[in-house]
Amino acid sequence: MENSILLIDCPDEKGLIFKITGLLYKNHLNIIENSEFVDKNRGWFFMRTQFTGFFPEKPLLEELREILPTGATIKLTQKERKKVVLMVTKEHHCLSDLLVRNYFNDLNMSVEAVISNYMILDKLASKFDIPFYYVSHENRSREDHEKYIHQVLSELDFHYIVLAKYMRILSPDFIAKYPNKIINIHHSFLPAFVGASPYAQAFERGVKIIGATAHFVNEDLDQGPIIAQNVLPVAHSHSAADMALAGKDVEKIVLAKALKLVFEERVFVSGNKTVIFD
Amino acid sequence: MENSILLIDCPDEKGLIFKITGLLYKNHLNIIENSEFVDKNRGWFFMRTQFTGFFPEKPLLEELREILPTGATIKLTQKERKKVVLMVTKEHHCLSDLLVRNYFNDLNMSVEAVISNYMILDKLASKFDIPFYYVSHENRSREDHEKYIHQVLSELDFHYIVLAKYMRILSPDFIAKYPNKIINIHHSFLPAFVGASPYAQAFERGVKIIGATAHFVNEDLDQGPIIAQNVLPVAHSHSAADMALAGKDVEKIVLAKALKLVFEERVFVSGNKTVIFD
Amino acid sequence: MENSILLIDCPDEKGLIFKITGLLYKNHLNIIENSEFVDKNRGWFFMRTQFTGFFPEKPLLEELREILPTGATIKLTQKERKKVVLMVTKEHHCLSDLLVRNYFNDLNMSVEAVISNYMILDKLASKFDIPFYYVSHENRSREDHEKYIHQVLSELDFHYIVLAKYMRILSPDFIAKYPNKIINIHHSFLPAFVGASPYAQAFERGVKIIGATAHFVNEDLDQGPIIAQNVLPVAHSHSAADMALAGKDVEKIVLAKALKLVFEERVFVSGNKTVIFD
Amino acid sequence: MENSILLIDCPDEKGLIFKITGLLYKNHLNIIENSEFVDKNRGWFFMRTQFTGFFPEKPLLEELREILPTGATIKLTQKERKKVVLMVTKEHHCLSDLLVRNYFNDLNMSVEAVISNYMILDKLASKFDIPFYYVSHENRSREDHEKYIHQVLSELDFHYIVLAKYMRILSPDFIAKYPNKIINIHHSFLPAFVGASPYAQAFERGVKIIGATAHFVNEDLDQGPIIAQNVLPVAHSHSAADMALAGKDVEKIVLAKALKLVFEERVFVSGNKTVIFD
Repeated sequence: MENSILLIDCPDEKGLIFKITGLLYKNHLNIIENSEFVDKNRGWFFMRTQFTGFFPEKPLLEELREILPTGATIKLTQKERKKVVLMVTKEHHCLSDLLVRNYFNDLNMSVEAVISNYMILDKLASKFDIPFYYVSHENRSREDHEKYIHQVLSELDFHYIVLAKYMRILSPDFIAKYPNKIINIHHSFLPAFVGASPYAQAFERGVKIIGATAHFVNEDLDQGPIIAQNVLPVAHSHSAADMALAGKDVEKIVLAKALKLVFEERVFVSGNKTVIFD
Repeated sequence: MENSILLIDCPDEKGLIFKITGLLYKNHLNIIENSEFVDKNRGWFFMRTQFTGFFPEKPLLEELREILPTGATIKLTQKERKKVVLMVTKEHHCLSDLLVRNYFNDLNMSVEAVISNYMILDKLASKFDIPFYYVSHENRSREDHEKYIHQVLSELDFHYIVLAKYMRILSPDFIAKYPNKIINIHHSFLPAFVGASPYAQAFERGVKIIGATAHFVNEDLDQGPIIAQNVLPVAHSHSAADMALAGKDVEKIVLAKALKLVFEERVFVSGNKTVIFD
Repeated sequence: MENSILLIDCPDEKGLIFKITGLLYKNHLNIIENSEFVDKNRGWFFMRTQFTGFFPEKPLLEELREILPTGATIKLTQKERKKVVLMVTKEHHCLSDLLVRNYFNDLNMSVEAVISNYMILDKLASKFDIPFYYVSHENRSREDHEKYIHQVLSELDFHYIVLAKYMRILSPDFIAKYPNKIINIHHSFLPAFVGASPYAQAFERGVKIIGATAHFVNEDLDQGPIIAQNVLPVAHSHSAADMALAGKDVEKIVLAKALKLVFEERVFVSGNKTVIFD
Repeated sequence: MENSILLIDCPDEKGLIFKITGLLYKNHLNIIENSEFVDKNRGWFFMRTQFTGFFPEKPLLEELREILPTGATIKLTQKERKKVVLMVTKEHHCLSDLLVRNYFNDLNMSVEAVISNYMILDKLASKFDIPFYYVSHENRSREDHEKYIHQVLSELDFHYIVLAKYMRILSPDFIAKYPNKIINIHHSFLPAFVGASPYAQAFERGVKIIGATAHFVNEDLDQGPIIAQNVLPVAHSHSAADMALAGKDVEKIVLAKALKLVFEERVFVSGNKTVIFD
């Protein structure tokens, strides 16, 4: 029970921190990191507490439930390794980066499988001994294609699906099955350049800065809660291809940063936004 | 004739740099800074040359015209101080910053006047002895309001109009009178959050980075050629008001940077984009 | 008693958050923002709590003293306007920026006076009706010069001294009189380029990024606790003068940001570092 | 002879661009990208020209030699793939990143071999079928150790040696054999934190931004010409280990960026600095 993490979000009211920390204190648990935030617009309270010490899980959760207002979400977890399935299409840069981090244990994750609608990145996955599932979308309806993906997923054990440059749009039905469990990297500084070919769009618009955005996926294309963003200066001398090339490095770093935050249980989803304690 | 600047843009063809620099060499002029760019999509050549030496202006321009392809734009200028008119509404931060730079000669400009649809910033302009023209928009049609602004402008001598947080939309007719002569600061990282209240929009969307964009104004709202952009990280703990406050610093610095580039004759407008030699 | 701020730092021990928030709860005070940090190396606990509600100050402090371990520092304050004295030499950019922010109430401060060893910026201070004290260092020993500055300071009421490009080194004796009360802006990305002419040093070294650092002043030159830093890319084409010019914008923004943090009581000094809750 | 690159640096004099571009024009070569810079302090001229067209190499070089002042350095090259040897110690992040880029052809290079004083990264190199040479430094003098490294190098064909987190100091003798051919990534924002354990130094100093620097190696430790730098914000809550972890991403991206610039022949070494045409 070393380094447990308690995540609470609930309607705000007076005395919440006092009550929650009191419960931990009474149970002889030692807080080593604590963060709170009140969303005044929503009147909502968020708290993340990292603590050490031994405790019986069920009673603690029950005690918490008693002192917290109705509508509270409580998550009590360990710093456990997160299991992830990566979905990709043709581009390698995010996949490579994540497979390397996985191999060297740099992110608190275990990559369980790679799913792709092309065979292109199969060899890369093999190098790192990660199962690669090829599920072609050719001559298949979206519905059909996703049915096959589901079949693969249903045999896997995972906490998160990471779209590491998966270039097809997932259906609302698919997404609804994994609420706040699908993380995507979009190759633009959202909400600029939603949709396809953002670098071509950025080139056409003549922007001086490009970016990348990691976000949870919900039913609205590129509209899910943003986890992390970063940017890169560009100039008139950059072609759309130059921007795409330079952007790859931002994409892979932003995605990895977002995953680190999520896997360390530092990210709350709050409506269409995130609250992040980093 | 110290530090002259020659700006050329024309259809690209072989030998342009050779011919242009040859003409300068023949006239005993010494290039101290030279930049070229070819826009391959448009097949267009851009060149900025800074040089020293004495020359008779008209013959040099004629010689240049002879060696350049049809359609060439030639501008021969000195590092002269640019005369500007500032237009503002209520917010002071860009105006303050520019008035201070003007007072201490930090930008190669001379502020000729401030025009505003409110009286609020009159006292600030007075502190720096800059004429302040109050042209209220109340009880006036856009057409009428702009007619009065034109009246003021018609008695002023200026190279550029700078919209230093002027919060009204100018009519296409107005804009058409000053092609590539009106520079605006938009308080978002365009093309994200076009239009009104970009910080409120950014807050609603839950972005992790906000920005500001300085651009030439053309008839399409917030769509003109971008000159400079910069960004600032934000977090869930920032309210829309916090973002607006933090954004002000980015806005004033980006606007000043864009003006420096324009006033030093480093910016070409190329379609809806800019080519910048900095 | 709207928006009080409680700052506590003390040796770390189990139950601190519980005890402190319990005291506030018992006194019917409502926490609206709360941040904690434990410096594990030092075994030291830091907490900043913003709360609303009425309370008698002395009893609350006594109750806090009772529940906190020996060695605790407790500061109970309001979101009051901070009084500052600005010290400058010849450069205007930080002074201008702060005088404008002061005039428009953008920073939670009240500039009480400007002290300078040159007359150069007197007119600027006058524009904003701020008393300007000229204390020449010429033909005076450092000791003597500082004696005169002290004379001026002794008649002023202030919380902080801000060295807004004051280019003389203060004696340890002077500094010792104002522990953690003097804030300086250094025109480099410390600890790179300590001491004089950092831009010339940066140019000589051929760095690709320059910066500025706002820090508390202690007896070791440019070694005090860092509050804020920012950077700016540069290129081979920038002269030392270009870097200095571009750097001014970074300097003024970093200084203002640091002051905002300090004036909002978000900065703890912890040994030679800062703990900042922003 | 598609896409040739001509690099010239020489004492500055009037008419250089005219003469050089004239020679290319006379030879029916078409400039597609051209950049010049004059270092006024040194009185030195730099020019990089990318052009298309067929030419006999030796005569062109002779003609160039004739029109350029004494002391000119002329390099005429193709956009050829650069052969590199990577040297590493224990950390994988830069090596992984470069091996992936090499495998997917993202950088214009061919990794010929990896040399290390530990066996740790052997398996990684094997995954990408790159020869790994283990040259232990244990029980060997520096002189001896480098003798063995030389033996390995002498059998390899390469343009550059890249120190991709090679944590031993190379002797001046070793370095002198490869002038401007050894590129190092230093895990700090040089010149801050020269030498060992820069993240520990950064943590101790309490900086708010950390960085990484890619530079050519010369005999002075961490003093060679800087090619690229980048930075990352940090906070009081980051331990030295957190900084080191976050810094790895900056290091690998900065190193790859520097290599891209060097391999595309965009970098001139000018004294202890670089002139970079990007």
